[in-house]
Order: sequence, then structure tokens, then C-alpha cells
Amino acid sequence: MPETTEATERGYSSAKTDYAKRLRRIEGQVRGVAKMIEDDKYCIDVLTQISAVNSALQSVALGLLDEHLGHCVSHAVAEGGDEAERKLAEASAAIARLVKS
Amino acid sequence: MPETTEATERGYSSAKTDYAKRLRRIEGQVRGVAKMIEDDKYCIDVLTQISAVNSALQSVALGLLDEHLGHCVSHAVAEGGDEAERKLAEASAAIARLVKS
Amino acid sequence: MPETTEATERGYSSAKTDYAKRLRRIEGQVRGVAKMIEDDKYCIDVLTQISAVNSALQSVALGLLDEHLGHCVSHAVAEGGDEAERKLAEASAAIARLVKS
Amino acid sequence: MPETTEATERGYSSAKTDYAKRLRRIEGQVRGVAKMIEDDKYCIDVLTQISAVNSALQSVALGLLDEHLGHCVSHAVAEGGDEAERKLAEASAAIARLVKS
Repeated sequence: MPETTEATERGYSSAKTDYAKRLRRIEGQVRGVAKMIEDDKYCIDVLTQISAVNSALQSVALGLLDEHLGHCVSHAVAEGGDEAERKLAEASAAIARLVKS
Repeated sequence: MPETTEATERGYSSAKTDYAKRLRRIEGQVRGVAKMIEDDKYCIDVLTQISAVNSALQSVALGLLDEHLGHCVSHAVAEGGDEAERKLAEASAAIARLVKS
Repeated sequence: MPETTEATERGYSSAKTDYAKRLRRIEGQVRGVAKMIEDDKYCIDVLTQISAVNSALQSVALGLLDEHLGHCVSHAVAEGGDEAERKLAEASAAIARLVKS
Repeated sequence: MPETTEATERGYSSAKTDYAKRLRRIEGQVRGVAKMIEDDKYCIDVLTQISAVNSALQSVALGLLDEHLGHCVSHAVAEGGDEAERKLAEASAAIARLVKS
């Protein structure tokens, strides 16, 4: 059950503007891939653009993960108990999804 | 130098409508990630959404690659000569980028 | 500078026997890939075996990472200060390497 | 059903000695990871070594794939017909496994 009762302070809160900018650029890149296909561009060039979008998304994810570890997970660990265990297991599962996607 | 002189017939030509639809959905997903960050959603939920976008992009890329092998590369191989070598090397480089992105 | 002065107690210490067994199996799988090539086995079958080895290695890495977060990083976070920052940054860099390998 | 009736000439045949050497080195690296764990080495250093093994394996796989495309798949494409379709589909499935492993 996604955690919505948590205070809205997130690890990424201080970088929200930067993430908004990066995601807008990624959105534009995806539109660019669609336009390349619409314009019958050469397959390899379309694939090169998709690899670039993948890498940009990956670095957004790694940034969010780093901030999550340093904020939400660290706070839970500092308090100890079951919540720390839960947050650590949750982070490891997110890392596994990222490694396998 | 991206190949633009090639006839506009591509391996993906018959699937252009499907790719347009899938890329519009991916574009919407990227906007969704941005909205989650704007709304201070929980980091792990944002990461889960990014992994989903990565997987959707990956399957678009694998589809394009499959069609490229069956169309552009196969035509070049059927004709033989240097163009076949070039197309094969180009495809292998695109596969390597995809594996490493 | 690899950390060798740390007490030898590691997050993975209690699972050393299991890791030894899993790595011996992976070692055997790599030898199996070499034997397949020596015996001129079909390329696709060799590739399938390599993907299996990659996945087995990846799950060893995810296990070690989970234990590292729960042990070394958590201890440092509980104590706070610069060491916590260093351990968190180090863990994020290891996650990035894993995602990109 | 793995293809064993195929002539033993493979795309990788001329590079068998090189692959044997690379796989022996990878086998040694896996043993090295096991030794690091046995010796209670720092988790991050073990993870760094695993990422190196993953990358070495990945480049063996990309080499085999490149040779398979240039040999088995190209021969089948040159002859045309169902076998070409089968070989192309098989190669695309192997690429997908590699991308997702």
C-alpha cells in the first residue's frame, strides 16, 4: 500500500525543480522518438535515441534512490525497530527492480 | 552519419501506428512520474513507476531491433558484400548499447 | 582505499556458507560455458547459459547489497556524522555500478 | 530443442582459443569473489568485483551474438524461407534475454 500518510518531506524535496526539468526533457525525448518513427527515420538512429532516454531515466532513478537511502531509510534506521527493517527491505526490492529493468 | 538516403520503407513501417500508441503511453507515464514528484509521492512508488517506463521503452527497442534484423539487415545480407558487413556491425553495436543502457 | 581495517564482522557473515555454495555453482556454470564452446555447441544455447550465469551473479550481488545496507550502512547511520554520509554515498555508487553492468 | 545436428562450424569457431582464455579468466574472477567472502573482505569491494565479472561475461555474450548474426543467421537469410524466419526470431529472443539479464 503506497505510503501516503508520511509527512510530505521527501529525500528528493530539495531537488524537485531539477527533477521536473529533467523529466520534461525526457518527455520531449520520448516525443522525439515518436516523431522519428513517424518520419520513417533509420531504425538504428531511433534505437540510439531510445538508449539515450533509458540512460536519462536510469540516472533520475539512481538520484531518487540515493536521496531515499539518505532520508527516509536513514531516519527509520536511526529510530530502529520494525520500521527500519521494513524500509531496508523495501529499498532492496526497489534496487532489484531497477537492476532488472 | 545517420542513414537518411535509404528508401522510407522500414522494418517497422507496418507497425507505425502501434509504436505511436505505445510511445504516447510512455510519454504519459513520464508525465505521471513528474506529477508524482510534484505531489511529494513516496520515493519507492516513484521508483516503481520509473522501472515500468524503462521496461516499456525496452520492449519498444527490442521490437524495432527485431524488425531491423528481419528487414534492413536481411536485405543487405541477401545482397551480400560490404553493405552486409556494415549493417551487421551496426546492428551489433546497437545491441551492445541496448544491453548496457 | 578498500576498507580492510573494519572488524571482520560483515553483513554477509551469517550467509558465508550459502554464498560459497552459490559461487561454486556459478564457477561450474562458467566452466560449462567454456566446455560448450570447446564442443562447438550451438551459439544460442551458449548465450542462454551465459544469461543464466549473469542472473545468478546478479542475485548474489543483490543479496550482498541488502545485507550491506542492513549492517554496515545501518551501523554508520545509527552513529551519524561523516561516516554515515560516506557509507551512504559508497552504497549508492555500488548500486549505480550494478545497475549499469 | 538445442540444435546439435548443425555442422560444427560456428560463427565463433575461429575465436575459440580467445573465448577459452577469457572464460578461464572469468572463472578465476568468480573464484576470487568467493575468496574475498571467505576472507571477510569489505562488502563494497566484493560488489565491485562482481560488477567486473558481469561486464566481462556480457562482452563474451555480445561477441558470440555478433558472430552468430554474421554466420548462422546470415547463412539462413541468404538461403531464405522458413529457416531464415526461425533463425531471426531465435536471435531476437536471445537478444531480449541478454538485455533483461
